[in-house]
Amino acid sequence: MTLPRRAHPRPLDIQNGRVDLTHGGGGRAMAQLVEELFIAAFDNEALNQRNDQGAFEVPGGRMVMTTDGYVISPLFFPGGDIGSLAVHGTVNDVAMAGAKPISLSAGFIIEEGFPLSDLKRIVTSMAKASKDAGVPVVTGDTKVVEKGKGDGIFITTAGIGIVPPGVEISGDKARPGDAILVSGTMGDHGVAVMSQRESLGFETEILSDSAALHTMVAAMVAAVPGIRVLRDPTRGGLASTLNEIAGQSGVGMLMEEALVPVKPQVLGACELLGLDPLYVANEGKLICICAEEDAPRLLDIMRSHPLGRDAARIGACREDAHHFVQMKTRMGGNRVVDWLAGEQLPRIC
Amino acid sequence: MTLPRRAHPRPLDIQNGRVDLTHGGGGRAMAQLVEELFIAAFDNEALNQRNDQGAFEVPGGRMVMTTDGYVISPLFFPGGDIGSLAVHGTVNDVAMAGAKPISLSAGFIIEEGFPLSDLKRIVTSMAKASKDAGVPVVTGDTKVVEKGKGDGIFITTAGIGIVPPGVEISGDKARPGDAILVSGTMGDHGVAVMSQRESLGFETEILSDSAALHTMVAAMVAAVPGIRVLRDPTRGGLASTLNEIAGQSGVGMLMEEALVPVKPQVLGACELLGLDPLYVANEGKLICICAEEDAPRLLDIMRSHPLGRDAARIGACREDAHHFVQMKTRMGGNRVVDWLAGEQLPRIC
Repeated sequence: MTLPRRAHPRPLDIQNGRVDLTHGGGGRAMAQLVEELFIAAFDNEALNQRNDQGAFEVPGGRMVMTTDGYVISPLFFPGGDIGSLAVHGTVNDVAMAGAKPISLSAGFIIEEGFPLSDLKRIVTSMAKASKDAGVPVVTGDTKVVEKGKGDGIFITTAGIGIVPPGVEISGDKARPGDAILVSGTMGDHGVAVMSQRESLGFETEILSDSAALHTMVAAMVAAVPGIRVLRDPTRGGLASTLNEIAGQSGVGMLMEEALVPVKPQVLGACELLGLDPLYVANEGKLICICAEEDAPRLLDIMRSHPLGRDAARIGACREDAHHFVQMKTRMGGNRVVDWLAGEQLPRIC
Repeated sequence: MTLPRRAHPRPLDIQNGRVDLTHGGGGRAMAQLVEELFIAAFDNEALNQRNDQGAFEVPGGRMVMTTDGYVISPLFFPGGDIGSLAVHGTVNDVAMAGAKPISLSAGFIIEEGFPLSDLKRIVTSMAKASKDAGVPVVTGDTKVVEKGKGDGIFITTAGIGIVPPGVEISGDKARPGDAILVSGTMGDHGVAVMSQRESLGFETEILSDSAALHTMVAAMVAAVPGIRVLRDPTRGGLASTLNEIAGQSGVGMLMEEALVPVKPQVLGACELLGLDPLYVANEGKLICICAEEDAPRLLDIMRSHPLGRDAARIGACREDAHHFVQMKTRMGGNRVVDWLAGEQLPRIC
């Protein structure tokens, strides 16, 4: 018999090519996509093994695992894109346990016909975010669905991290009297994304706050291992996240509207759109609940980090059998700040 | 001011309800879906903490992480569904490093309008698979996309596991002279799924082989820590997976058609559809490459496990500068078994 010569395949045509079903089929086309696009961009020891798992050494102890799907529309927005967001969001969910993130996985679900140039741009941005954060994408998966059965690209990342000994941060640890801090202005991400939606015809200079918070968290945890709660107010915004924590911990909360940092441009855009910035998603901010006496130190640490310059104490926890989150308004009254009831901003992250 | 009474929300109407955008919005509707459907089904200590991460203790050492997206169509098939598949597939990818799986994450991307009853059925099946395997789903995420921007439900799972000391299984470790084993019949999963596709009007009694292989792998690794390669032949089937390994290890392979176990019904269905069972996906089978002298022992171990009864030695690795996978046919000739070139079966897993 004559053996066919295995010609080196032509490189992917990144500029004009499109993803097709063969790129998810498990055959040669998928191998080429993975090699030329994903492995080339993410380039790390675990991934370079080219196995169905990434392998790495871990110290023993308490570990956390988290996952998030990213279905944002549009895919590119001022200050980031779905790729950087998928890294930042998952690094942050690991960090919100006080943990040091060690590895990420990335699963791509791509719609047939998606431009390879957009895929390359997203993967490049994701790889940069991962390298900047020092948290490698050690394993991945690519699936392709027929045109009309997806929406460009969805990314699901998972992340793991190691919790330093003695740290026991959890949403059920807030106690009456604890201080409520935020690391910066609320609503930037949601407004930045909305500014790109064609149907919402306004332009703004607001950038998404999308960023990895783990180095700031590491400094906070090192100084105050007894932090009670950390959580990033993403979907549903500050209001929904505080309600989650209040319910988990069985406390009430009182915050002051005048103390919640919101950029004037964000406030303006929200007024235009009939939105409340307390319910708009953030992707580079955290809520920290701590003993009142630890608040000044934690605020100092946050404010000395580039991602926490606008950190503020916005209120305190208190006894309340109903676990209400209330807000002292600028007008001087109190109002209940409930969970997000409907869906004000679909697919914002 | 008068505080609103927080009425207990009505339970989800699983029987008639449908997923809507609020279920992915980060507010009360999402919290209810997560509580009544996901936490109720998966019910484990880490998930019950209701944090954005699941926490658990790990021993130190070598760890692996893996991820897979499941975009299968149809969602329910003989022998399983997207939920059980998402657990089995990821447990298996962890096990293929010889590792003991410890935790899973699950990210759901659901199309608006998806019946809650189907979601419940899928989550229940997923929870059962996870409990049967002894590998908890410790964290999850739910996103909802508008009708027409998805296809019912996509699930992306990630998994982590600990590699026993001394085990160094990897796709680049096959050597000339090594034996190639498979744990059972090839092609069952793909044919079972195809039998459910309306456009392919044939019925068959073939069940998917979808199953978690980690207990069988644990026994194999305990007996022969020096196993060179383990890999599950999913997308692209046996042929593509062997080509992957041959390329990674820089070896050729020769297998014998007569030794590759294929169920007669699967062979019949493949003939009807013009498919080659060597390229059809499996979800409960593994390929094991080992030193020739270890083969009999590993075959014994596999055959004494319920999931390995049809295990067989199908060939051996050899020197080949081209890294060809060849097959001695029933007719006595040799043919090159190449990678899957196109996409014979979109969305089979």
